[in-house]
This record gives sequence, C-alpha cells and structure tokens, in this order.
Amino acid sequence: MSDKLYGYAGKVLRINLSTQEIKKESISKEFVYGYLGGRGFNVRRLYYEVPKGVKPLSPKNKLMFATGPLVGIGLPLGARLNVTAKSPLTGILGDSNVGGHFAAEMKYAGFDQIIIEERSKKPIYIYIHDEDVEIIDAEGIWGLPISKAYDAIRRELRDWRIQVAIIGPAAENLVLFSSIFFNVYRPAARTGLGAVMASKMIKAIAIRGDGYIEVAKPNEFERFVEEMEEAIYSHEQYWPRRIMGTSRILLAANRLGFLPAKHFTEAVVEYAYKVSGERLAIEYNVKNRACFSCILPCSRFYVIRAGKFAGIYGEGPEYEALAGMTVRIGNDDLDYALKAINLANDLGMDIISLSEVIAWAMELYDRGLLNKEETNGLDLRWGNMETVLELIEMIAYRKGFGDILADGVAKAAKKLGKGLELAFHVKGLEMIQADPRGLKGYGLGFAVASRGADHLRSEPFIELSDDPEIGRKLFGEPEATLRLGVRGKGKLVAYYENWCALIDSLEVCKNIAENMEILPPDKIAEALRIVIGIKMDINDVMKIGERIVNIERAYIVREGIRRTNDTLPKRFLKEPIQKGPSAGHIIELEQMLNEYYKARGWDPETGIPTIEKLKELNLDDIAKDLISHHIKLR
Amino acid sequence: MSDKLYGYAGKVLRINLSTQEIKKESISKEFVYGYLGGRGFNVRRLYYEVPKGVKPLSPKNKLMFATGPLVGIGLPLGARLNVTAKSPLTGILGDSNVGGHFAAEMKYAGFDQIIIEERSKKPIYIYIHDEDVEIIDAEGIWGLPISKAYDAIRRELRDWRIQVAIIGPAAENLVLFSSIFFNVYRPAARTGLGAVMASKMIKAIAIRGDGYIEVAKPNEFERFVEEMEEAIYSHEQYWPRRIMGTSRILLAANRLGFLPAKHFTEAVVEYAYKVSGERLAIEYNVKNRACFSCILPCSRFYVIRAGKFAGIYGEGPEYEALAGMTVRIGNDDLDYALKAINLANDLGMDIISLSEVIAWAMELYDRGLLNKEETNGLDLRWGNMETVLELIEMIAYRKGFGDILADGVAKAAKKLGKGLELAFHVKGLEMIQADPRGLKGYGLGFAVASRGADHLRSEPFIELSDDPEIGRKLFGEPEATLRLGVRGKGKLVAYYENWCALIDSLEVCKNIAENMEILPPDKIAEALRIVIGIKMDINDVMKIGERIVNIERAYIVREGIRRTNDTLPKRFLKEPIQKGPSAGHIIELEQMLNEYYKARGWDPETGIPTIEKLKELNLDDIAKDLISHHIKLR
Repeated sequence: MSDKLYGYAGKVLRINLSTQEIKKESISKEFVYGYLGGRGFNVRRLYYEVPKGVKPLSPKNKLMFATGPLVGIGLPLGARLNVTAKSPLTGILGDSNVGGHFAAEMKYAGFDQIIIEERSKKPIYIYIHDEDVEIIDAEGIWGLPISKAYDAIRRELRDWRIQVAIIGPAAENLVLFSSIFFNVYRPAARTGLGAVMASKMIKAIAIRGDGYIEVAKPNEFERFVEEMEEAIYSHEQYWPRRIMGTSRILLAANRLGFLPAKHFTEAVVEYAYKVSGERLAIEYNVKNRACFSCILPCSRFYVIRAGKFAGIYGEGPEYEALAGMTVRIGNDDLDYALKAINLANDLGMDIISLSEVIAWAMELYDRGLLNKEETNGLDLRWGNMETVLELIEMIAYRKGFGDILADGVAKAAKKLGKGLELAFHVKGLEMIQADPRGLKGYGLGFAVASRGADHLRSEPFIELSDDPEIGRKLFGEPEATLRLGVRGKGKLVAYYENWCALIDSLEVCKNIAENMEILPPDKIAEALRIVIGIKMDINDVMKIGERIVNIERAYIVREGIRRTNDTLPKRFLKEPIQKGPSAGHIIELEQMLNEYYKARGWDPETGIPTIEKLKELNLDDIAKDLISHHIKLR
Repeated sequence: MSDKLYGYAGKVLRINLSTQEIKKESISKEFVYGYLGGRGFNVRRLYYEVPKGVKPLSPKNKLMFATGPLVGIGLPLGARLNVTAKSPLTGILGDSNVGGHFAAEMKYAGFDQIIIEERSKKPIYIYIHDEDVEIIDAEGIWGLPISKAYDAIRRELRDWRIQVAIIGPAAENLVLFSSIFFNVYRPAARTGLGAVMASKMIKAIAIRGDGYIEVAKPNEFERFVEEMEEAIYSHEQYWPRRIMGTSRILLAANRLGFLPAKHFTEAVVEYAYKVSGERLAIEYNVKNRACFSCILPCSRFYVIRAGKFAGIYGEGPEYEALAGMTVRIGNDDLDYALKAINLANDLGMDIISLSEVIAWAMELYDRGLLNKEETNGLDLRWGNMETVLELIEMIAYRKGFGDILADGVAKAAKKLGKGLELAFHVKGLEMIQADPRGLKGYGLGFAVASRGADHLRSEPFIELSDDPEIGRKLFGEPEATLRLGVRGKGKLVAYYENWCALIDSLEVCKNIAENMEILPPDKIAEALRIVIGIKMDINDVMKIGERIVNIERAYIVREGIRRTNDTLPKRFLKEPIQKGPSAGHIIELEQMLNEYYKARGWDPETGIPTIEKLKELNLDDIAKDLISHHIKLR
C-alpha cells in the first residue's frame, strides 16, 4: 500500500492564535478510512480536543473547517465544507455545512482540514496561500458588514478571485446565531459559529491554492463523472432545482400543508404564490450560479426591478430564508422579504434562527403577552416589515429588545420569563421552516438531530414520495415513506442519518441527491474505490456514517443530552394542524422515538449508545471516555 | 339581449374554389351556445356539409378552419385552431388542432371559421387581409418544401410577420398522412389534412388582420387573466414544461415503462437520457417561444452544435416526434433524430404516422417478413438512420417502397398482404408514442377516439397521479386514477373526452391544463360568463362537450364505425409488456369498453348513441339523420 492519499490534500493546518504557532500535520490512512473527511474529521477531533465543560466563547473552544475526498476533483455536487466548534447557541455540537468554492481552494492550498485554536488579542484575518500562512491585522475592517469587508480584503490582497470566509457585525457582537459567510451570500449558518470565530477575533480567512488533487483511478473516474452527470441531468427535479433552487419548496410546502406560517399557527396560506420561488424566477431572477464543479447551478441572483426597493440585488434566497422572512412572520410582501434577507445576510446572521426569534416575539405580541414597553416601542404585529427591518439591526447590534433576542429563542424566553412553550427550538437550536406535524419523518429528525432542530442531519426526503411500496421495500414498513405515516419512521430516520453523515463527510451536496437516486450507498462505495482507492461494500460505508452519528451522540451525551431532550415543542405534540392537507395531524413522537432508539441500538430509556453498539463501531475509546465521565452505558 | 357576439369575430368566411365565390356569413348565437367554436363549429358543419359517401380527396370534401372564443383576447393558452375535413387516411373524421399565431390573426381579420369548398384547377394560395380575400397563383411555389415556400410567400406579400398555413411536397403527392404547417414548424399534423388541402390545389393560406375582439366584461376579465397566470406560474409542471415542453415526457415514459420502443416490443430502454428532452435542453436548445398571448413558452429552438449535422436548427421537437424518430424505430442517436424530424417537417408529414410505417416495416424486416427486394434494397434494421432519411424522402415523393408506406400503415399492410396484425393503428390512424398496456386510460382513449388512435381526444392525464383518492372522489372508483388500474377507466375517459371537446372548442391549449387544475369545468363556466357574457353552470358546459363528442360519434357511425372498430392491435390485448415498471401488463379493453359505453349512454352492443342520449343533447336532427341512413338506434 502506497503512502499517497488519493482524493485528499493530505494535511491539516493548525493555527494557534495565542502563540501564533502554525503547524501542518499529516492525515493518517486510519483516520481517513474511519471518518472520510468533513463532518467526520471535525467531530472526531472535536470530541477529544474540546472536552466537556469548555465554554463555547472561551479560547479553549476550537474552530474547525474540513472538506472531503469528493471535493475539488471535478465531481458534480462535490464542493462542500463543514465548520465545527462547540456551539455558543446550544452548548452542544456546533456544526454547519456550506457550499461554494472555498472547500476546493482549501484542498488546492494543501489542506483537508483547518483547526484554529485559542484567540488573538486584536482583530486579525488569516491569509493562506499554499504553504504560506499569514496572520494579518484587521482593525480596519472589524465592524464592516460582510459585503464591504469582503471587498476590502480582496482589495488589500490584490486578488479578486480569492476565496474568503468572513463574519459580520452580528458575530462581532456575539449574536449567538451569527454565521460565517463564504463569498458574501453563502453562510455556514447554523449553531452560531460566527460568534465562535469572532470570539477568536478573526474577521476572515482568505485562501488561495495552486495545487491539484489526484484520484486513484483517473480513467474510471471519468466514466463515473459522466454517469453521475447523466443521472443529475435526467433527474426529475433537475430543471425545477436549476431554475428555482430550494426556493421552489415554498409552494410545494403550501400544497402539502406544512408551512410554518405565523409561527406555526397555520400550515397553508392564501398568498403562497406571491412569495414563492416560482414568482422569483419569473419576476426577479437574472442569472444562476453553481458551486465549484457543479452542473446544477441552483443558486440564483435576483434584482428588485421596481418600487421602494428597486435596485436591491443579491444571491438566493434559499427556501429557509424565504419562508423565514415571509410566511413564518406573516409577511406577504416579497420585496420586503428580500430586503430583510439581504440585511440579515450583510450583518451576518442565521435567518432560520432570526425568523424564529422574530416570529416568537410576534406571537407573544399578538397574544398580548408582550407589550410595547418591553419591545422598545416596536409594533410587532404579524408582517410589520418596517419594524422587522429595524429589529434585525437591533439584534445584530444588540440594542434594547434586540439584545434579548440575540441570544436565541430559548435563552430569550428564559430571560423574559415567558413564552417558554412557544419558543420553538430543540436543544437550543431554532426549528426550520417545516411543520413536523405535516412531515413526520422530518419531525422525528428534528427531535434527534445532534445539533438540535434541523433537517440536514437526516433529510428523509423519500417520505415525500408518499409511496408505500418504497417503504415496504426499504424498511418493511409501508408507512415509512408516507408523509403522514408513523410506523417505520424510526428506521427511516436512522438510515437517512447514517447516509447524511456519509454525504457530509465526503462533502457532496444533498441538493437533488436527497432522495438517494444520485448517490445511493453502492455508488458511494464505488466512488471511494475510484477516488481513494479503497475497497468497501455497502455495509462498510454505511458503518462509517453510523460511526459518525454515534460519535456526535456521544459528544452531546457527554454534555448532558438524554432522551428527554429528544423532543419537540408542545404545540406539535398536542395541537393538531387546523387547515390544509395535513389538517388534524399532530406528531406521534414517542412512538417514533422508541422505534428510532431500537433502530440505533441505543438505550431506549436514556438515549445513550450502548457499549455493544460503540464497540461494534470501533469506538471503544469513546465508550471508555463516557464511562470516565460517570455516564452509565448499558 | 344585444346582437353583439362578445369573444368572437362573428363571421364565417366561405370560399368556393370552383366558382371563386367568396361569402361572409354571420354566426348565430344559437350556434355559439351549442358548439362554442373550433372543433365544435367544424364538426357540426362537417356532419351536414360533407355527407356520407363523399370521397376525402374529391372536390366535395370541405376543408374547415375554426378557432374559439378564448383566442386572441390575451388569455394565456388561448391560441389554438382546429382544422377539419373528411380524412383521406381513415375515411372518417379528419381533425387536427394546432397552436401558434394563425388563430388569433384569423379573428383579427374578422373570421372565427374558414370553410373551403371544391377545388382550384391550378395551384393557388389564398391571401386574406381583413375584408379582402384574394386567390393568388401558386405555380411558382408548388413543389417547394415548407420552409422555402413560406419565405417565398412572405417575400411576395411583402410581409415578414404574416401568418401562413402551408403544405409541403408530401401533401402535394397526396401522402395520406401529410399535414398542414403553420409558420414552418407547427403542424396540424394528424389524419392527413395536408392531402385534402393539396387536393384542392391550395399551397397556402396567408392571413393578416387588424381587428380587435371585445370581451363581455373587461374588468372581470383582467382579474380572470391574472388568476389564470398565477395558477400557471405556480403549477408544479410550469418550469419543466417551459424548459422542455412535451419533450420531457420521454424520460418520464421510460421511468414508468410505457415507451413504444422498437415498435412497442420494449417499454423501457437503456439509452433514454441520450434521446431525452433533458439532454436537448442541456446540449442543444438555444431559446424558447410561446404561442400567441401565452405565458408558457414551451416551444424550443435547438441547434446541432457539432458533428455531421452541425448547424442544423429548428423548432421543437415535441415528444411525439422525438420518440417517433428515436425509440420507436430503435434509434439512440439524437442528432440523426433531429435531422429526420427536420426533414419530415420540411416535406410536410405527420411524424407519428411516419414513425409507425417505418417501425412497422422495421419489425417485419427484423422478423424476416420483408426482404430487400420488397424495400428497394433498403436495409431496414432497427435504428439504421441513413436508410430512414432516404425512406422519408421516398415516402414524401411516393417512390418505390415509399409509395406503399405513403398510404399509412393500414393500407400498406393490406397492399403488401402481410403484417396486418402488426399494423398499429385504430380506425386507420397510427398509434401515438405510448404503450396502452402501461397507461390504460390512455389505451381506452385510443380505442374510442373519434379520429382513431389518439390521446388528444381524452388525455386522461390524471391517471398518471397514481393517486386512488382522486379516482374515488371524482368517479367513485379508486382504480380510475391508477395508471395500471382497470375499473373506472370508462367513466374517466368519457369525462375527459367531454372536457377535451370543450377545450378544443374554446381553443385553449391542453398543455399544463390537462390535469384540469388550470381550467376545470367551473373555471370554464366563469370564462364563458366573462368573455361571452352567458350564464352557464358546470353541467351546462360539460353538456356542450358531450354534445360534440356525440356528433363526432354520429359522424363516424354514419360512415360505418361500430363497437367492433373500437379496439386496439392484438399485441396490446394479448402479449404482456416484458420489462420495466409495467411488466406483465396487457390492456383489459373489453371490460373498460363496457364501462365506457355505459358512462356514455350508448348502446353497448353496437357503440351507437341511443335516441334518448341524442335527444337529451338536443341532437334530435342527428338522430333522425342516422335513422334515415338505416342505422338502428335504441
């Protein structure tokens, strides 16, 4: 076996901002075969390097960027990156995945992973150009919004095509759901990693690489890429996704009845078309853009052509931001939504969390539980967008009522001492734009996801097929692939979680791949053989996914997470949806959870992985570590 | 009640080519309320004006063009035209529907219907400019292919934007499946109406109008259009249809297993993507075009960018032509298919029928039932496209073996005295590109359609939903809306036939409307109230559709059609599909037919409408006429 790591750059860049020490460490084959890359690499290191008790905004937290073996080699969808740290928003696993061109550039500079330790005394940015790593003063750009800081860095480095990860004022003000932005519009949005970056006084990381990544079997790889391209081009969703990206989900969600309208009090709205991706495509969009080497240019640039906001332009929005600044807060004005999204992006926040804190405050206001004295005179009625624009700035700069919301909905509710049951989060992370009562596998996924309420840990898209035959075939449970079914969802979510962990570690995109037609486990095994040169069967690769899910679970278990935390806000468990195609439904979570733990081989009482399961996954060391923390393993 | 006919031009233009007499007749409100326009207008007149026994290519046949009340008023989808005559291919009802800009222009010139009688002694073309109607010598352009003749007429009339209906060499040579083309690429393709036009020595009809069509309630109409636009833009299929038009059906048909590959011997192919609309969109298409006032520009222009046929460009192809020149004849080379389609268009033929006569000959050749002596040395193995190109010319110019095929597959089989059971037609019209064993409602529709094997008379698209709830709700039969279901298909097809007759008489497009989301019966009633100013309920409008279907049935019954003719080629009734998602299925036609006649209120033994049904539809005169032809009515 040669020492060459095909498909990888082969090095980790480790930067200590206190000592200014810069290390380049090799990556072992053992590490590669066990964790593949990206999300797997980061969480494996985080488990030991950021032990229990570290405060997320302290110097002892570490900020990790890692990409995977399918990135930077010309494969469609292969362009992604995971950013990981302990989350200041949730206190557990902080992890967010992003596309664009940064990940490929990182590999060309020679690094599969970058780990940043400790903190700088004053604002800096990091400039990486192949072997050279510089830490540069950033006093002049600290405080600038994303777009201006981005331009300033490119100007200073005299390179208009450099790849930059950057934070905005929200992060600098330690807004707990602030994000890290890549090329202005693409955030690693969730779990507040912008604040972690700011706590280390890093305004940006700029990277440039001139290297090349070799694959193990170049000829076979060419054929593999061609087949994958054909599969993508002939995918039923190719053109809708190319034209509208994820923004097309809004109308579909309205059609099926799982919108989060007015803070999940309504699952359908009359005005869906007015705020839809379809309307954006017809009236606003001007061009499309793809991530590195992708053939599905699902990102769109829009311009507002007339009216009050004429001339405003930007990239996106994706569905989550679009629904967040429209239906979730009761706004039917698309221009205002685009303006608000643009503003929140430029200040550097996660719009999912932002939409929840605003919608939550609006529901309290609507119910008379919050008055104008408490909101600094803000009139928080549904859809009052002038106020929303004001509030976004107040949150980013932590002014008045904004300062309370800037800590996320869970802490805000505690601080205000009200609306605790209406604070829609799981484990401290705000819920995404889908009502779990109308999409039950997703709902289970929100409850158990290792980073809190989120769909990207499981994305059991196949339940939208509403085809019982698929569920019967895959899981022996017809209901598993019925959107409103219950039985079989545990198996479904466990399976998809393993697959998502794989995909996030290979660092390919889930867009269009989420129904598993493009990269099912056997294709992943084939890719690994061709790119890395390793022989694995379907079980081997799925085992890696399962291993990553189990380490993440162990990480949050060590921080105190148990089955009782695997839950959903009461509304979804108790109050049926009122109107639309999902009317009458709650989510039958306990039944699904029992099935999930069983599928996982975890202790159903505590939600803790069993010794047997950890050993089966070669995680004996993790089992030992948990025991050393006085956690009882069955 | 005022005399003004809102929504109509109000006149019929009647041209007698023997006497050169030109008449402009008024349209009565009674006629409008009974038949609406387009297909309804034409068949009602055809019934009396082209009585039993008229030879289709004799001067006594009449060629009729009619459009409808929803055309030329700015309504999306409202752009269509029916062309009707007795068919030389089938000897029964000849009728074909086409989009583009001709229909609106016709109304602006002042005419809802044009009827051409008798025959000219020498080639002519007709030039209509509002009130002025000229009959112009066409000796100089007779014989030219469509594209060249089109240019010559526009040059001669000094008008590059004039609307022209035109025939090519195939029609001039009386190929029985020759078509009438509108603006080069859009044919009224089916049932051989090109030959009827040629038999009257008409090379073209050029039309220009400066009028305006008023609607009854302009303000309400504006709102109606806006709502319809929103419904179209927010339709799930909007973007795929806009990008790929009907060409997207090929991959979907392969996915579901109802392709007509190798003359219906295979329902799925390995190479579907290679000849798909998806690939066209990615590699060939350059722009899109819409019909008059439509917001769904589903027509595409392609260019072949490299290779042997580099530089060839054209509009389309639609699914029927695409599948016809690829899978049906065993061809996996898209460039060759485009070349063949372009050639067949320019010579002026119906590619559905063309693909059947070629595929039929290829199957005979493959089975050793046809040898090179009989084919003039042509090597007719599957997918031999050089030969196909040669054969297309031979058919259009009636040379050698081409002369036999030029009469359509039914007559060709009779003439050759073989392959009768493999001649895939119904009532003399060649089958479209869908295997009825994999799409059973469509299959029943082929068997009973008034013009022979065709989907556009019923288009029961909703069975593709595969959602039993819809069938249960609409027809009390869950299987009705299962693609491979049997029970309930009779009701489904009867219902959709009535709806299609309505749509074809209003002259709106079925594209995107076929699942009835855009123009369900209640919306049609609303449109009639707003555009024509008439109050009708859902039952009233559906009754008009039913009336038109019944007149058409009476027309073909008078020509000798009975239940025994409502059938499908034996392969579909006896031999199950071998591979793919429809494997194992035949079509259970008799059971469906029984249910269909019952749903229709027709005599199940003969397939003849009952007196009661005809009276219910105010067709007492038709009943009398049938009886006068010694046809027994129950």
